[in-house]
Amino acid sequence: MGAPMANQTHQEAAVATLRLRRGEDRRLRAGHLWVYSNEVDTARTPLKGLEPGAPVLVLDHRGGVVGAGYANPRSLICARLVSHGRRLLDRRLLVERLRRALALRERLFPAPSYRLAFGEGDHLPGLVVDRYGETAVVQLTTAGMERMREAVVAALAEVAGVRHVLARNDTAVRALEGLARYVEPWLGEPPPVVLVEEDGAVFEVDPAAGQKTGWFYDQRANRRTAAALARGARVLDVFSYVGGFGIRAALAGAREVRCIDASEAALARLAANAERNGVAARVRAERADAFEALEALAAEGARFDLVILDPPALIKRARDCKAGLAAYRRLNALGMAVTAEGGFLVSCSCSHHLEEEALRRVVREAARTQGRAVQELAAAGQDMDHPVHPAMPETRYLKALFLRVI
Amino acid sequence: MGAPMANQTHQEAAVATLRLRRGEDRRLRAGHLWVYSNEVDTARTPLKGLEPGAPVLVLDHRGGVVGAGYANPRSLICARLVSHGRRLLDRRLLVERLRRALALRERLFPAPSYRLAFGEGDHLPGLVVDRYGETAVVQLTTAGMERMREAVVAALAEVAGVRHVLARNDTAVRALEGLARYVEPWLGEPPPVVLVEEDGAVFEVDPAAGQKTGWFYDQRANRRTAAALARGARVLDVFSYVGGFGIRAALAGAREVRCIDASEAALARLAANAERNGVAARVRAERADAFEALEALAAEGARFDLVILDPPALIKRARDCKAGLAAYRRLNALGMAVTAEGGFLVSCSCSHHLEEEALRRVVREAARTQGRAVQELAAAGQDMDHPVHPAMPETRYLKALFLRVI
Repeated sequence: MGAPMANQTHQEAAVATLRLRRGEDRRLRAGHLWVYSNEVDTARTPLKGLEPGAPVLVLDHRGGVVGAGYANPRSLICARLVSHGRRLLDRRLLVERLRRALALRERLFPAPSYRLAFGEGDHLPGLVVDRYGETAVVQLTTAGMERMREAVVAALAEVAGVRHVLARNDTAVRALEGLARYVEPWLGEPPPVVLVEEDGAVFEVDPAAGQKTGWFYDQRANRRTAAALARGARVLDVFSYVGGFGIRAALAGAREVRCIDASEAALARLAANAERNGVAARVRAERADAFEALEALAAEGARFDLVILDPPALIKRARDCKAGLAAYRRLNALGMAVTAEGGFLVSCSCSHHLEEEALRRVVREAARTQGRAVQELAAAGQDMDHPVHPAMPETRYLKALFLRVI
Repeated sequence: MGAPMANQTHQEAAVATLRLRRGEDRRLRAGHLWVYSNEVDTARTPLKGLEPGAPVLVLDHRGGVVGAGYANPRSLICARLVSHGRRLLDRRLLVERLRRALALRERLFPAPSYRLAFGEGDHLPGLVVDRYGETAVVQLTTAGMERMREAVVAALAEVAGVRHVLARNDTAVRALEGLARYVEPWLGEPPPVVLVEEDGAVFEVDPAAGQKTGWFYDQRANRRTAAALARGARVLDVFSYVGGFGIRAALAGAREVRCIDASEAALARLAANAERNGVAARVRAERADAFEALEALAAEGARFDLVILDPPALIKRARDCKAGLAAYRRLNALGMAVTAEGGFLVSCSCSHHLEEEALRRVVREAARTQGRAVQELAAAGQDMDHPVHPAMPETRYLKALFLRVI
């Protein structure tokens, strides 16, 4: 388990260093894990020549140790720390961090279905793991973690006892690290369909071809909160994917549920999930562009008692802010237009770049343009298996506002 | 039910007006309900001479109607709107607003135990009502609402069918409106003890002499979240009051629960509640100053798996910010010191003046001084029967951070 101490000392001697410019250690000393390339004193310690993913020791401008991690000269984030000391990323560290991550999930959830590792939030930069029982679906998002892929698989088997590991390394952010995109099994034979249970609802999930790793654990608690508002309601689930919000609402006693999604594959899975949960008669799915479908519903005067807007990130990069914000505005105005008097609107955003307060402004503007008033009942975030690193606002991304429209 | 239209028109003709200075209508047009005295063009419409609580029409600097409500020349908030049109506060409005408030609570909760009216959040400025079954406990915080007390009682009986109404008009904010402080029954014979049930736990509450209205509904959802972390845990409930967090933790399987509060009356009630819920053997209560008790525990090396810090508002007024912030810092540092490795800390603040981000900073600093790292699992607010008015940040007051300390 891990290299012996002598070896480690030897390793460390060979490790490259990155010297920061004066003052640029401050954010890191406050706990942050990212080094930006413009913070490095490249005259003294050039980034050029470092291999993507190479281990690195980060020093302040006087040579004091700030932390250790791995580098990537190709990325704007040119290094990520795994420790605020001299400890580097190795299998032993992976095992320790995964054990700590697992202990939290085992306390939180009754069954082994959860996000087991949430990158920086679990002090595991570049590593995301969603667990579906004996199957772990892994996303590596940095060259430094990519180098450790065999250790990641071994650590997952050792710590969590999973029998199958599937790499879903097809996420767009890998391009920022110069990494190729691929999906492949790394251990065992990952099954084509896995089941997830949430408060009695059972969902079929497709780890290899579904969105992200197949399922969105981040919305679990918010699905529960929304379902609690659904008894007897006409429900509209926009961007429904495989029916997480909609089917749970139906199980909670919704009168009828209308789901809208643009993906045929998602809707096929949704139909199977509705069937499996015995609510197919009350759940209707429609393949459509969400904006167009909402406009048609608004035009025909349709009204719902519970409307869920759970779009994909409409602001993916900082430079998309303006167009993305306009899309959030339009979406929320349309969502509000089809919410009945006294009905509920659940407005979500998973864009890092749209802060909670900005989403609140979007909702307020939507209310004004629609001539409605709203009460904010709750403002929630991602579920607890996506822990936020308090020094890294970047790890807080999901927002869900629960509103009553009057 | 309410005055006939003719009468209302007559009323309106007699209503005083407040003319705002140029631009001071903007916040109100965005939905806010408060007029500050420095926003009024007192040369044209003097505040002096207005009776506290008198109905008033608020106009912009050109004479356009901004809204209607009631005034109080004694208060910095010299008027509060009940409508953004010409509608004034009368019994009919009270009935309508209470009906709308009740409809929300009836959807949210299985039993008639909840905050029925949350002032501005329910578009009922100056009126707070906590319901305990057939008993309503009322807090009137403005002269304008005080004038309507008979209508409030009548509307509560009509809308919610309550048989007892108790006025808990002993809150400090009444002084800002020049109102006396008193507690008195206004309808029926309010019982000395009422029962509140939460997810199977039953609590005895003392509406006449307990803190606020006897019970803190605002923390209900947070008590549930904390209880879900309590299985097998050693729990420390600081500022326990009558045991809301602690007893729910014990019922959720905590190994032992230690409660600390400075009030003998609260601890007597806590003991009765522990007994009633069959957890007295695992719940231990101690009368002490929270800071001193925490210091003693830290000094003796005591460690808990779940620590709840639910202090009263340590920043009551803006001018207390500095001292209050220091108190939050000390409290959180001590709380973190007694949290075991891998344990949970629930850090709450009900100070309007300490924003969520500021509480997060307090926690981060505490972690640094204690040499600990934290993961933020959730950031929650007041429960849904305390709706936030999106244009009034003043209506958002409760913060609860759920942290894991590592």
